[in-house]
Amino acid sequence: MKSHGLRCVSCGRRFPPEERFWTCPDCGPVRGTTDVELDIGEAVSGFRLPARVDGRPIATLKDFLPVGPTAQWPALRVGGTPLYDAARLAAHLGLEALYIKDESLNPSGSLKDRATAVALCVAKEQGKDTVATASTGNAASSLALLGASAGMRVVIFVPETAPRPKVAQMLLAGARVAQVRGTYDQAFDLCAEACKRFGWFSRNTAQNPYLAEGKKTCMIELLAQTREKPPDAVFVGVGDGCVFGSFYKAVRDLQRAFAWGEAPRLVGVQAEGCAPLASAFVEGAATVTPVPRPRTYADSIAVGFPRDQVKALRAARETSGAIVAVEDQSIRGAQRLLASLAGVFAEPAGAAGLAGLMRVLDDGLLKGVRRAAVVVSGSGLKDTEGAMSAVANAAIRIEPRATELDALSKAFE
Amino acid sequence: MKSHGLRCVSCGRRFPPEERFWTCPDCGPVRGTTDVELDIGEAVSGFRLPARVDGRPIATLKDFLPVGPTAQWPALRVGGTPLYDAARLAAHLGLEALYIKDESLNPSGSLKDRATAVALCVAKEQGKDTVATASTGNAASSLALLGASAGMRVVIFVPETAPRPKVAQMLLAGARVAQVRGTYDQAFDLCAEACKRFGWFSRNTAQNPYLAEGKKTCMIELLAQTREKPPDAVFVGVGDGCVFGSFYKAVRDLQRAFAWGEAPRLVGVQAEGCAPLASAFVEGAATVTPVPRPRTYADSIAVGFPRDQVKALRAARETSGAIVAVEDQSIRGAQRLLASLAGVFAEPAGAAGLAGLMRVLDDGLLKGVRRAAVVVSGSGLKDTEGAMSAVANAAIRIEPRATELDALSKAFE
Repeated sequence: MKSHGLRCVSCGRRFPPEERFWTCPDCGPVRGTTDVELDIGEAVSGFRLPARVDGRPIATLKDFLPVGPTAQWPALRVGGTPLYDAARLAAHLGLEALYIKDESLNPSGSLKDRATAVALCVAKEQGKDTVATASTGNAASSLALLGASAGMRVVIFVPETAPRPKVAQMLLAGARVAQVRGTYDQAFDLCAEACKRFGWFSRNTAQNPYLAEGKKTCMIELLAQTREKPPDAVFVGVGDGCVFGSFYKAVRDLQRAFAWGEAPRLVGVQAEGCAPLASAFVEGAATVTPVPRPRTYADSIAVGFPRDQVKALRAARETSGAIVAVEDQSIRGAQRLLASLAGVFAEPAGAAGLAGLMRVLDDGLLKGVRRAAVVVSGSGLKDTEGAMSAVANAAIRIEPRATELDALSKAFE
Repeated sequence: MKSHGLRCVSCGRRFPPEERFWTCPDCGPVRGTTDVELDIGEAVSGFRLPARVDGRPIATLKDFLPVGPTAQWPALRVGGTPLYDAARLAAHLGLEALYIKDESLNPSGSLKDRATAVALCVAKEQGKDTVATASTGNAASSLALLGASAGMRVVIFVPETAPRPKVAQMLLAGARVAQVRGTYDQAFDLCAEACKRFGWFSRNTAQNPYLAEGKKTCMIELLAQTREKPPDAVFVGVGDGCVFGSFYKAVRDLQRAFAWGEAPRLVGVQAEGCAPLASAFVEGAATVTPVPRPRTYADSIAVGFPRDQVKALRAARETSGAIVAVEDQSIRGAQRLLASLAGVFAEPAGAAGLAGLMRVLDDGLLKGVRRAAVVVSGSGLKDTEGAMSAVANAAIRIEPRATELDALSKAFE
């Protein structure tokens, strides 16, 4: 493991990299999440943005990560996702440029693979043989598949409401799945307790500071891919806040490593039916009022109690960004635009970033955004029900007769 | 467009590259499929296997494709998929090496994107504004998304039985979808007629020789990625036979281009419930007896009347390969092995290649296969029902109480 420390995001206290300090003992598990601080002399100072990103797994960014040179990376190609210059979509929105970072092309179909890959490296370096997580969705399928590829035992806690296809995917990969007769929050707490009791490695958002290290690689790649003409602002859906917070961590690390200029404005996007972070941002609050019953079809960001709230609020405030809320109808519109003008099939939460960008442009919330980037965090194939609800047009039914074709051709004009 | 000709696979007659010669007028649409023949002096002779594949779109292989230097490639990253050295799976099967070519990491989640990308280039070079296809699955979603990204009008003919989520995906991308009250075969014929009548560009398997040109890039990449230690045999699921036939085309093109050695043995894999090509192969027949009612859960290879049968049979015979049939139960086992030992989530047809490899190893059908490659042609996310039917174990239900954890930990050992 590379020399590094942990630092509480609230009180600033520094700790050695031991599991008992993953969250600050003084500030508690929510206010006291920690950042990984790399030893700048040893590692980060030599770092440069990679010249090529496409197809290069995040292991090639290891100088910038708290893993040692002999780390056992999963064999799957995590990261190195494409960045598309979506000219037609940019024109549609009246922008000079619109970049799409397509995270659906990670092995399990979401950005979460980046966090899982780093978590598995750290777990192996610590001699762990079991990694556990509480999740119903992308994090769990990511851990199940990458864990299988790395030969690691995987334990997953899901609430009993978890959709059967997602559970099937985890089981197919050989994961041990516990279905908890209760809520996601109860599953989360039970997973935390199990990790403590059995010495399992926890891949739980916010509890584990190494996840953000993996996720920040998405932002590093994005900045490398747009280095000629960087975006003014970057938009992404926000649930727990870990991805969003990690984007800011990437920028700060780059600023520490070399003469990296101004950060793009970071804009987190929530659904109106579950927008605790957007509310806290608008109110200028330091912490978040939980939403007891999230109401949105964008399940991956339906998080009523965001566990990485401190980092998320900081990312928005310190980059002159924002956290905004959008209606589900607007996310549906963004799903349609991504597919029909850029050919990118996003899950609802993955289209939230674009919906937020449209909101900001409509309302004039952020002045001067001419070049924007949106991060599509997960594949639309993960939620075809969600896609179906976003379809505006319909198929035309015809008889299998050539005489039907002329009318069909007219209808399709 | 690059200088090239078309050549009938049955009578060998050569034609200029005009749409009326896409299939041979003498041999008809099934026996008379054609191969694209590049002018070797102009293009192919300068070709070398690429040193790097990962993340490089197939446009980088353009010297080997019948498209001109100014071709308008789709903006999406098609091809450049990873090849995994699946050591644990190889050990499990007693092989020296097992490579997995993961085609699920193409933009729409399947190998079909390679064909679509080339088809769109050719369509644009010919000044077409509409591309049509008959399909219920991967080809249609590929055309819908890549066509959208290229600003092309897309028309899709599906049988009325097409699953709603797949139709939703096409509609989301803005495709015009005609649902035909009839079978896939009727939809296919209607699509062919519509292309003729309205001048639409046909992206129909076997009818359009350029699709195989796109698909062959998968094999070129695979051979480049394994150049140090090439596989003895390559395994892939077979439906219409176009992908399988294109793999042989890749090898022959490489042999024409430079001193490329022996081809790996090509093994096509069908499901027992729909194995017309495997039957014809065993019988030594020149053509295929159709299977009226395909019975397999591997929907992407459930093709009763394979339209690229001549190329498929040739690929198996001329490489000392085979076309074998496997039971659905064996494909389910292959899905589990791919996910649990290699972390790759394949759709049923995508796991068929591995099932065929296991069949060949069990039966001793091909001697001397020590290093094998399997091509996972599509993502498991495209058919989570199929994945669910392949799961052997079950989730364990617990109450949300810490007292449940000790029993859980024992059950998970």
